[in-house]
Amino acid sequence: MNYDAFFKASLDKLRTSGDYRVFANLERHNGNFPHATARAEHAQKVTIWCSNDYLGMGQNPTVLNAMHDAIDACGAGAGGTRNISGTTQYHVQLEEELADLHGKPAALLFTSGYLSNWAALGTLAARIPDCLVLSDALNHASMIEGIRHSKAERQIWKHNDLADLEAKLAQQPLDRPKLIAFESVYSMDGDIAPIAEICDLAEKYNAMTYLDEVHAVGLYGPRGGGIAEQEGLMHRVTVIEGTLGKAFGVVGGYVAASAELCDFLRSFASGFIFTTALPPAVVAGATASVRHLKASQKERQAHAERVAEVRARFDALGIPHVENPGHIIPVIVGDAMKCKFISDILMKDYGIYIQPINYPTVPRGTERLRITPSPVHSPADIDALVAALSDLWTQCELARKPMAAQ
Amino acid sequence: MNYDAFFKASLDKLRTSGDYRVFANLERHNGNFPHATARAEHAQKVTIWCSNDYLGMGQNPTVLNAMHDAIDACGAGAGGTRNISGTTQYHVQLEEELADLHGKPAALLFTSGYLSNWAALGTLAARIPDCLVLSDALNHASMIEGIRHSKAERQIWKHNDLADLEAKLAQQPLDRPKLIAFESVYSMDGDIAPIAEICDLAEKYNAMTYLDEVHAVGLYGPRGGGIAEQEGLMHRVTVIEGTLGKAFGVVGGYVAASAELCDFLRSFASGFIFTTALPPAVVAGATASVRHLKASQKERQAHAERVAEVRARFDALGIPHVENPGHIIPVIVGDAMKCKFISDILMKDYGIYIQPINYPTVPRGTERLRITPSPVHSPADIDALVAALSDLWTQCELARKPMAAQ
Ligand SMILES: Cc1ncc(COP(=O)(O)O)c(C=O)c1O
Ligand SMILES: Cc1ncc(COP(=O)(O)O)c(C=O)c1O
Repeated sequence: MNYDAFFKASLDKLRTSGDYRVFANLERHNGNFPHATARAEHAQKVTIWCSNDYLGMGQNPTVLNAMHDAIDACGAGAGGTRNISGTTQYHVQLEEELADLHGKPAALLFTSGYLSNWAALGTLAARIPDCLVLSDALNHASMIEGIRHSKAERQIWKHNDLADLEAKLAQQPLDRPKLIAFESVYSMDGDIAPIAEICDLAEKYNAMTYLDEVHAVGLYGPRGGGIAEQEGLMHRVTVIEGTLGKAFGVVGGYVAASAELCDFLRSFASGFIFTTALPPAVVAGATASVRHLKASQKERQAHAERVAEVRARFDALGIPHVENPGHIIPVIVGDAMKCKFISDILMKDYGIYIQPINYPTVPRGTERLRITPSPVHSPADIDALVAALSDLWTQCELARKPMAAQ
Repeated sequence: MNYDAFFKASLDKLRTSGDYRVFANLERHNGNFPHATARAEHAQKVTIWCSNDYLGMGQNPTVLNAMHDAIDACGAGAGGTRNISGTTQYHVQLEEELADLHGKPAALLFTSGYLSNWAALGTLAARIPDCLVLSDALNHASMIEGIRHSKAERQIWKHNDLADLEAKLAQQPLDRPKLIAFESVYSMDGDIAPIAEICDLAEKYNAMTYLDEVHAVGLYGPRGGGIAEQEGLMHRVTVIEGTLGKAFGVVGGYVAASAELCDFLRSFASGFIFTTALPPAVVAGATASVRHLKASQKERQAHAERVAEVRARFDALGIPHVENPGHIIPVIVGDAMKCKFISDILMKDYGIYIQPINYPTVPRGTERLRITPSPVHSPADIDALVAALSDLWTQCELARKPMAAQ
């Protein structure tokens, strides 16, 4: 076999289908986010409208000071795995902070949200004898890979469909171990799972629940504990998983659960055990961010206002977007090439950066612009976004929603 | 099923076998490493002898300044996946620096060495049609999990055994895709793979080679390119994988290879695509570290001297350690309980921190102390280590090596 020819042919296929990804090379400016410099042949000033630094915490001075202080106090890296010289006071404190955030006895830190999902689901489903995993059809890649890795039996239930979930649960013996895996805010459509009803079913059929709150932590609930906090459900969910890399603005992932479950993952999850711990400075920054958002409502309020404002302005102009109760505004284009084309023009002619979201991140035919307003987008930023999209909708003869339907 | 009872029972089994892990909670002091404060009931000054910050780069001022500067310039986190607003100039530069380090056309950054192994091996072996993976018996957990995840056929060859590897290769059709996965420096025994001979076999049987240099990058070769650089073999290895979390002192992982192969992983590896990019500050620190160690021999020389010194002192007292050509000094205890006991006394009575290495990190019956001297260990630190182990060997009536056998 000619290996490089195989790689090249696979990449050519992506180019033909419009799915080949070109990364924008950005220079973020501290204090000036969402404004940035895009570096291609020429440097260009852009406004970022697709970041997951939802609240601008990546430039919050408390967070940055905590990182600076930790670097000064103890250097760059952790120097080892959590077991072999890599656990510091910072790691211990962040785990306490996260357990408290979710009202759980314990929490366990991973190097990313991806790894926390993959390792936690992979380990639970593999090690609990005869475990059946019931996985929502739109679960994130990291959950799917974890479940797949476990080699446990898996059944996929229709997205957010309680009847389908119950039908599958009812077929199983009551005492067979079961794990229901789902998300709260689904990141590509912005819709929200019926957590209370899923917990009802879990209790009825003796299943564990595993809830990914990656796109909700920091953003929802009086202390930023996520949708489960907002709805008063945290105590009913077995495992709450989150990230430190989106609303919290840094990097890292975690699960919060019972002390036994966290200790079980700490002791058996390969993806936790066999990897260098997060740098103390990263952990210190994340801790400062979690603490800040436990106390401050300002960012969450401003965030909700900006999201509502952008939606209302789109509606007024008939720019179609997927309705949802959350903070993500998906504008479906439905074609990979066209989606990339619009994104390119937005960048080139308007200085607006919205990465096209194509397959495999979303199903083919649902290619989209995924717009994420934040408290640091100014009224002028919003005006510019709305004007640019309106121009483009005319220019490219894209369909508008009838105003009456709003 | 009672889930928490199951977790508790599993943990109790670990406690009975002596494999339950207790993490030391350490406060590293910038500028004072390997000295640290261990926090248990009381704070205690300790000297760390088991860190993988092999060269003390975690407190190198160039590295720390680069991190500070990047935080000031662009904030805490990357704010997105590499594809969706998370790629910065820092990421692009580090990938160029790493490609250059290994004399390869391209490199691809992952959030950890674990993830780079898991995602690269998992993706290559799953996507190359009918790929056979030939995996060294002592490969790291991250490689094993990646290979397992791919569901490709896997054959395990005896550790560093060329005859066994060749026998397995020879059985296969020449044009069947094959991937030989191995490490250069094996981290628990410190022995080194016969890279040249493995490349000979790979060429003879038309196989790709995948080399984990996690415990060698920064440490070996005139520019810190690892054992393959030292032996002039980088161009013969298909994929070189490394970490930024050990000798480079920060965190992160990568592969260096052909442009097509890196682009293939960039485009298809779930563990690369679906996760928040490393923070610019982490990337900037890693870049500074890689650059520093390309130019400076000082750290590598001092490292080799300290390792030789500790070995000679152990030999003089008959303290048995596994001979190897590398920098890791394993002292086999061979029993989980005893290993933990010695480690506890070292910490409590001597202020020396060497984490016991037990199952599953090493096979049962080979439990050990794994000692990693560094350029920042002083002569006084070495005196204290040697005296403590000598005391303990007498006190616990552990076997000494006959002096004559040295
Ligand atoms: C639903 C969901 N879960 C998990 C992750 C992974 O989190 P992280 O970026 O911290 O790896 C993501 C996005 O990256 C996500 O969208
Ligand atoms: C041989 C080997 N490969 C890969 C890794 C993973 O690297 P990282 O710590 O960067 O995740 C380790 C240790 O952690 C290792 O020992």
